[in-house]
Order: sequence, then C-alpha cells, then structure tokens
Amino acid sequence: MSTPDPGWRLHHVAHVVDDLDAAIDELAPLWGLELEIRETLDAQRVEAAMLRRGDVRVELIAPTDPESGVARFLESRGPGFHHVAYSVADVAETLSELSERGAELIDERPRPGLGGHLVAFVHPRSGGGVLTELVED
Amino acid sequence: MSTPDPGWRLHHVAHVVDDLDAAIDELAPLWGLELEIRETLDAQRVEAAMLRRGDVRVELIAPTDPESGVARFLESRGPGFHHVAYSVADVAETLSELSERGAELIDERPRPGLGGHLVAFVHPRSGGGVLTELVED
Repeated sequence: MSTPDPGWRLHHVAHVVDDLDAAIDELAPLWGLELEIRETLDAQRVEAAMLRRGDVRVELIAPTDPESGVARFLESRGPGFHHVAYSVADVAETLSELSERGAELIDERPRPGLGGHLVAFVHPRSGGGVLTELVED
Repeated sequence: MSTPDPGWRLHHVAHVVDDLDAAIDELAPLWGLELEIRETLDAQRVEAAMLRRGDVRVELIAPTDPESGVARFLESRGPGFHHVAYSVADVAETLSELSERGAELIDERPRPGLGGHLVAFVHPRSGGGVLTELVED
C-alpha cells in the first residue's frame, strides 16, 4: 500500500440534468458560478458544461440520446448527483494501484474527457456506492 | 451578483453507509485514504468519519437512530452519495448571499459540524438535486 498522495484533490462534482441550458441558467447566477467549458462528448452521447467559482467546479451533464447510459441514469434516478472526480498526478498509475488493490474499474485505461483531460471511471461498487472519476489535470 | 470568489473550494463529498466501521475498513485501504476525524454528532443522530488523501476528503455517515433523517435517506435510497461540501470564507455571509438570490436554505444560520467547523446546508432544490453544505474551514 502506498503512502497518502499529497497530489490528490477534489476536482469536481457532476450532476445529471434534463436540460443543460435551463440548468446553467438556474445554477450559475444562484451560486455565482461561471461557465468555463461547454462541449458535446459524442462517445458518451452527452453534452456537458463545467461551471466554476474559485476552486469549486460543478459539471452538468445532459443526455443527447435517449438510449445512452446517462439517459437511463436520469430516467431511473432523476436529476441530481452523478459522480465525483479526483484530480491525480497520473491516471494510468492510479488505475494500476487501484486495480492491484481489487478495485472494479470501468475504464481499464485513461481516455479523453471534458476539456481534453485524461480521465477514467471507477465502478460505484468500489466507491461506497459512488461513481468516481480520476482526472489528470 | 458578486464576482466569482477565489476562496471557494470543494471541501468534501459525503457518503451515507450502513456500517461505519465496515465502510472505513473497505474504503480506506482501497483508495489509500487515512482516517482523520471520527465523531458522533448527537444532534443529527449520526456517527461520521472523515477520510483523507492529499486534499481529497471523503466523509462517511451512518445513522445511530433508525428514526433519524439519515436513516430514512439510507432506507429510501441505499448507501451512496449524500452531500457535497464547499469551503467558503464566511458561511453566514454566503448564506445571506444565497438567500438574497432565492436559494432555499435548510440552516438559516451556521451551526457546528464535524470537526467543530461552522457549517450550513442548502436544500437540494436549490442545488440541482444535490444537497450542498457550506463549511468554514
């Protein structure tokens, strides 16, 4: 087991929403958040926005295809929390470390995510019921 | 509307769990987290632990009374995400700011939370479906 890594940081919390524009229009002025990134992620069939205030980042995700995983998540659980993301120095190395310890990975290797960062997801079964993303930022 | 506040940071994400000891024993070695605080919060009828790796803090919360709000949450939604917490310079001032903008507050004024920090909760209806805590750390 390695020693605690001072490089780990909370990167963002992501919410799934029905309507991305409506959610941005509601949440940004209420919380004083500014729109930093807005992109369509074709592979995930979602559109996503990153809102920010200081070091608080809130990602909003809306499905672009009613058959996508995020659309099914929204249908079964309603709008709300989707995942938490930790910023780590090296996503590939962290995946190896977690895998050696028995974590159930969704992504076996890093892939491009919002804003072009390398990311990978770990299954909620290994996160105390919480879907967890690793981000190389 | 005020300008973005560089002092805002993601402070922690909290998971609700059935069994606090079992959750600590599972998650701490898997993620390389260290136990930083463990307390019983009588007013909320929960026991809570703060785990940490670098600047990533994961709070685990388990009910101590089957009639508590957290027990009902666990019964209806199962273990998993409970709330996200933002660290702000002044919780009372942030509550005023949010209230002026129409946010629905759970705590009208700051109260002591885990580790003795002043905290206050904002209703999920004002957080895009996500229960949000403000922490003065």
